[in-house]
Amino acid sequence: MSAYTRYTTTIARGASTERLVLFSDAVFAIAMTLLVIELRAPDASAGELAGALAGLIGPYLTFALSFAVIGFIWLSHHRKFRVIAHADPVLLRLNLLMLFFVASLPLPTAILGDHGDEVVAVVIYAATISVVGFTLSGIWLYAWHAGLIDPSVDIAVFRYVLLQSFPIPGIFLLSIPVALLWGAGAAELTWILAIPISWFITAAYRRFSDRTA
Amino acid sequence: MSAYTRYTTTIARGASTERLVLFSDAVFAIAMTLLVIELRAPDASAGELAGALAGLIGPYLTFALSFAVIGFIWLSHHRKFRVIAHADPVLLRLNLLMLFFVASLPLPTAILGDHGDEVVAVVIYAATISVVGFTLSGIWLYAWHAGLIDPSVDIAVFRYVLLQSFPIPGIFLLSIPVALLWGAGAAELTWILAIPISWFITAAYRRFSDRTA
Amino acid sequence: MSAYTRYTTTIARGASTERLVLFSDAVFAIAMTLLVIELRAPDASAGELAGALAGLIGPYLTFALSFAVIGFIWLSHHRKFRVIAHADPVLLRLNLLMLFFVASLPLPTAILGDHGDEVVAVVIYAATISVVGFTLSGIWLYAWHAGLIDPSVDIAVFRYVLLQSFPIPGIFLLSIPVALLWGAGAAELTWILAIPISWFITAAYRRFSDRTA
Amino acid sequence: MSAYTRYTTTIARGASTERLVLFSDAVFAIAMTLLVIELRAPDASAGELAGALAGLIGPYLTFALSFAVIGFIWLSHHRKFRVIAHADPVLLRLNLLMLFFVASLPLPTAILGDHGDEVVAVVIYAATISVVGFTLSGIWLYAWHAGLIDPSVDIAVFRYVLLQSFPIPGIFLLSIPVALLWGAGAAELTWILAIPISWFITAAYRRFSDRTA
Repeated sequence: MSAYTRYTTTIARGASTERLVLFSDAVFAIAMTLLVIELRAPDASAGELAGALAGLIGPYLTFALSFAVIGFIWLSHHRKFRVIAHADPVLLRLNLLMLFFVASLPLPTAILGDHGDEVVAVVIYAATISVVGFTLSGIWLYAWHAGLIDPSVDIAVFRYVLLQSFPIPGIFLLSIPVALLWGAGAAELTWILAIPISWFITAAYRRFSDRTA
Repeated sequence: MSAYTRYTTTIARGASTERLVLFSDAVFAIAMTLLVIELRAPDASAGELAGALAGLIGPYLTFALSFAVIGFIWLSHHRKFRVIAHADPVLLRLNLLMLFFVASLPLPTAILGDHGDEVVAVVIYAATISVVGFTLSGIWLYAWHAGLIDPSVDIAVFRYVLLQSFPIPGIFLLSIPVALLWGAGAAELTWILAIPISWFITAAYRRFSDRTA
Repeated sequence: MSAYTRYTTTIARGASTERLVLFSDAVFAIAMTLLVIELRAPDASAGELAGALAGLIGPYLTFALSFAVIGFIWLSHHRKFRVIAHADPVLLRLNLLMLFFVASLPLPTAILGDHGDEVVAVVIYAATISVVGFTLSGIWLYAWHAGLIDPSVDIAVFRYVLLQSFPIPGIFLLSIPVALLWGAGAAELTWILAIPISWFITAAYRRFSDRTA
Repeated sequence: MSAYTRYTTTIARGASTERLVLFSDAVFAIAMTLLVIELRAPDASAGELAGALAGLIGPYLTFALSFAVIGFIWLSHHRKFRVIAHADPVLLRLNLLMLFFVASLPLPTAILGDHGDEVVAVVIYAATISVVGFTLSGIWLYAWHAGLIDPSVDIAVFRYVLLQSFPIPGIFLLSIPVALLWGAGAAELTWILAIPISWFITAAYRRFSDRTA
């Protein structure tokens, strides 16, 4: 056996996902908590504080939106990695790519918080969320094809989880042409619809799956 | 069995609380440490440093207060999750909601640090602490009714822990009308009373519980 | 048995130190990494960057000093908690107190970085390091008297570890009168002596302990 | 047995690497996520946002480069510590030294982001990356000579991993004379070559190792 073969069987062998999951959780937690840093306390003189705080409402709502979106992505990552039993070098790199976009979120959040009525701010924000979501779908797809998922998950369950991961990034992707055609406000309205639409699609698939079982 | 049923029994089944607890601890630790970021070193010229530092005393005390409050919430979370044996999707979401308010605390802390004598700063701060505390009570209440708590905890112990979680957020909630009626200073005085009052209520209940046992 | 007694035996019983250690490590790691945030890239125009960077040398050295000091405190915490087998409510609170001073270190570091030649900056910095170190000695002392340390540690080993924890905070404490009497530079010189003095005291005790064994 | 000997056999004995690895991961995760803090949302008035955002492209690319480099270092640390079975005091200190340079990376990243066309910014950045990489090589070398590596790793595998850790810091080191001779742009070009060159060297060694096996 060559040194390289022995290297691959000792050091680079299929690793447990434990350190990967802990590291990802740290990045999720830090990104979620750093979002608030962009909300600076206003420099108001006595008596003008209430007025100055009114200007923080937009940035605060954007902070809440980003926290909720990263929270949902974390829950989704959580669910998938409960059945992804092994990690290989490609999975580690795909996960780092997803974490890169998660870590970059404080920037689009701050831009949107200051410029919520401008199309370019809406497009950058929607594109980042969409890329995070689809990279997570890509991790799930790769893990299935590389045989890294626990055998208790069959192809129907795999497909159900894959389908479940599309609505949120899909709606953020669709909001980009909406922003370009009808403006920033219209795109932000579609985001609010993301959660009910996501529920509706999941429920429809569930009923379909029950009928065909 | 439909794909959805198999999904719920493999991926979305009652999860252990380990990853939830580690993730929460990361958010607690980051929020506590980020509080200091708002305390900027003063831009003083040589010889004027001591005077400029005097202006940091108020913000520093607010930092200490927020650190102590998050520390108490962490201890309380710690105690509850030692007996919450399982996590379900609702518990995960309630915990994320609590973490949202924990993560947002650096902002009310910075506002209070700069404007400790203004009613609006006191009200925003007290409301945030109060919401964090009551959301944690809500987590405990939900965990009991959803059967997620270890069977070694009976209803009397459950009630004792629930009661124990009320005084701190209760006093911060009560300080809001105090601030509106008698000003910022009066409200801040009630906060200092939170710890002795909390001890007194706990001790009273303990004596009552010993008598009825 | 009253509800309170059952509470103390189920929820508030002597806890393992695992979550305490992980939480402390998170605060150590965040405080160490946040130190760099105070080092802002200079706003220099083209060609003037090299000169502007020279102004960062003082703050950078202070960053390195604080990183080294927190690193040593972490190593010391690490060693102690390998034999502290249980945690009780007092230990949890003492540990939170120590973490409060660790978390506050970015502020004295930034003040010292900007005002390394002023006595007040040196005093605040030395006092903070000293308090962190002595609080850790206090944790060790409390853990011994509360019977929380693993029985493999006898009184001689306990005393050796206690003694080992004194030189670094002791030298920082002594540097406060040095700063007041002979100025900031003299105090900073004593800090550089902290590591060799700490080695010397430890070696002397080791020889003494070998002779009396 | 003296107290010192008993101390070394109870408290300072060869520790498991678990806490070391978790602590390192926290510093890696925080450093990677803090990089984005230096990217401030532009203060543009309505309609000028798109232009102002163009000025963020350089800093954003530097953020992506630093995230990728820390990500690769993390993967490399991950691989090495899967077979480093024990930690001794020297290893703990070497690891802290490496983490110091990792934690300091947001500063050179911010300087390079603002001054990507200046030689001094390129030199500081390349030197920091190079030092992080070579310190990690030093950790591996030390762990081998101190007998801390799992016996499943023989000398040929040890050498393969050592060699694998040289190309990236080597190329950043070589880019320093390149920057001094041919300017900032030429040095940045060599960085882009780091990944293909690293692949080529690894593949060449693999073929050589297969032939001699």
